[in-house]
Amino acid sequence: MLEKTMRMNYLYDFYQALLTPKQRNYMTLYYLDDYSLGEIAEQYKVSRQAVYDNIRRTEAMLEQYEEKLGLLQKYERRQQLIGRLKDYVRQHYSADAELAALVNELDELD
Amino acid sequence: MLEKTMRMNYLYDFYQALLTPKQRNYMTLYYLDDYSLGEIAEQYKVSRQAVYDNIRRTEAMLEQYEEKLGLLQKYERRQQLIGRLKDYVRQHYSADAELAALVNELDELD
Repeated sequence: MLEKTMRMNYLYDFYQALLTPKQRNYMTLYYLDDYSLGEIAEQYKVSRQAVYDNIRRTEAMLEQYEEKLGLLQKYERRQQLIGRLKDYVRQHYSADAELAALVNELDELD
Repeated sequence: MLEKTMRMNYLYDFYQALLTPKQRNYMTLYYLDDYSLGEIAEQYKVSRQAVYDNIRRTEAMLEQYEEKLGLLQKYERRQQLIGRLKDYVRQHYSADAELAALVNELDELD
């Protein structure tokens, strides 16, 4: 469950701009603010089932976007490489602040 | 016009997975293979106007995706930084093949 929550948080980060405002609201409350389905249902005056269905559909949409665009996968590959580059620079050129700054800038871009 | 063609080629690269097969076919013929609207219309047995409308709508969709996800913009920023990093490594550590390989790997990831 924790792993699913983390993955949904990441996918939400990458693809939230493609969701409707309602989908964004439910996902934020459920995954980021840790509301229960019942609490969201109460707040929006809808049934718990309606909230559940909406969130499940949104999760499926996020997975479909990831299948098509692969932004999370590409991000992870880039982060892994940048990590290796950072380690290498730290080990071999720890006195070169300019090089470290360039690598950090690249890291912060993501 | 050339600038628009280049931009559409880039946007198509990033977002083609979100288009329908028909949209992909028209865009490929028009922008990559340089067919005229008339030639595409003939091949698909539709009016020239239908092809024109489909391509204009697809262009608008691609721009909307870019507004929401900004993949081209992020790519350009990353490429610019990787370019600076490559130049720096070449100027200061031209003998370090391992460092150059790491930076190249990062470049090729995009």
